[in-house]
Amino acid sequence: MEYGEAVSEHKTKHHSMILQQEITLKPKPRGFHLVTAEILGQLPKLPQTGLVNIFTKHTSCGLSINENYDPDVRTDMETIFNRLVPEGRPEYVHTLEGDDDMPAHAKSTLSGVSLTIPITNGRLNLGTWQGIYFCEYRNYGDARKLVVTIVGE
Amino acid sequence: MEYGEAVSEHKTKHHSMILQQEITLKPKPRGFHLVTAEILGQLPKLPQTGLVNIFTKHTSCGLSINENYDPDVRTDMETIFNRLVPEGRPEYVHTLEGDDDMPAHAKSTLSGVSLTIPITNGRLNLGTWQGIYFCEYRNYGDARKLVVTIVGE
Amino acid sequence: MEYGEAVSEHKTKHHSMILQQEITLKPKPRGFHLVTAEILGQLPKLPQTGLVNIFTKHTSCGLSINENYDPDVRTDMETIFNRLVPEGRPEYVHTLEGDDDMPAHAKSTLSGVSLTIPITNGRLNLGTWQGIYFCEYRNYGDARKLVVTIVGE
Repeated sequence: MEYGEAVSEHKTKHHSMILQQEITLKPKPRGFHLVTAEILGQLPKLPQTGLVNIFTKHTSCGLSINENYDPDVRTDMETIFNRLVPEGRPEYVHTLEGDDDMPAHAKSTLSGVSLTIPITNGRLNLGTWQGIYFCEYRNYGDARKLVVTIVGE
Repeated sequence: MEYGEAVSEHKTKHHSMILQQEITLKPKPRGFHLVTAEILGQLPKLPQTGLVNIFTKHTSCGLSINENYDPDVRTDMETIFNRLVPEGRPEYVHTLEGDDDMPAHAKSTLSGVSLTIPITNGRLNLGTWQGIYFCEYRNYGDARKLVVTIVGE
Repeated sequence: MEYGEAVSEHKTKHHSMILQQEITLKPKPRGFHLVTAEILGQLPKLPQTGLVNIFTKHTSCGLSINENYDPDVRTDMETIFNRLVPEGRPEYVHTLEGDDDMPAHAKSTLSGVSLTIPITNGRLNLGTWQGIYFCEYRNYGDARKLVVTIVGE
């Protein structure tokens, strides 16, 4: 594909536009959860081509892309993240909100709080085995707000 | 919100545009720093709706979104990251630039070097407790360059 | 730069557009690989200003930005990631695809599977020492698909 041609096409026919929407995920227990369907079910019709950014407005959970088939992967992710950032270490100073709180903040930085995913032919262009993980790092997470921003045409 | 309607509106009234700007953060000591105000103070007026991408041009620091209230969280983040990637391990081979250098590169990959944040009603759409962290992983960081790219309308 | 001026300019002369392309990286051995040239060689002419999102469609590899000069950094990154997520732990339950498989999924979440990089003056606006790393977390990775989405003007 030659970029000059794409430019011409865009100038005469298409301009990118932005669509934004705030959605909510139902409360979930601590762990890694496959939420592709829960998110897609709340989105408007996607544009043909573009990007979607999904951003969670919290500091003790995260978003990731990972394996969508075997739930054991999510179990092991929880095990691995707990080993990476153990609870109850005597050196922690931010401890008032519970043993799970400070590790939740650190895990949130490790996984990140947002995803940017390509849109192709009106669909999320995920690989065959990819799904969206919502990572609840608190023992008892509340409903969690996401801002979804779509840039597309 | 129905996507077809949004399309019509965009075709007649709005097109997304891009604004880009390079900014500099003042030198900071090693650690996690809340820099929301320092970054916002250097940005132009934001568009009504869109995304901002903040990208640091260095390989031994990082950017993250995390808790904006209790400075103890930043202290514990430093403790946790030092435990995740300890200094002075005999197996490291990239050692010429100091004991803090190779761990700084690894931490940079763990946190990431860029953020993409939604803009809503002309403001960053961060959660109540969210702020932007600049993570200085070197003992003595210099001024750090950021590229800010805004896609909005 | 004043935002109002930029708005006028955009309204009369430029609109952002989107270009998207799927590319393939050749199979690579396990480890961290500098792939800036391999990716750039497969991209169309970049727009003057914008963002490029690079997204890998797999769940056992990753993308990162890090040091482009000393190959020892890539060696140590592999050492550090293996220490962060060790293989063959008895607590893992997702084990059917080999000892390297579950750690590969976890490393993928730690580094992330996509990058968003600014484009300035028709080029990737990377720092002097920055390059794009492809992180192959499986012992024997296959060819890997990337979706590249460019938003620019």
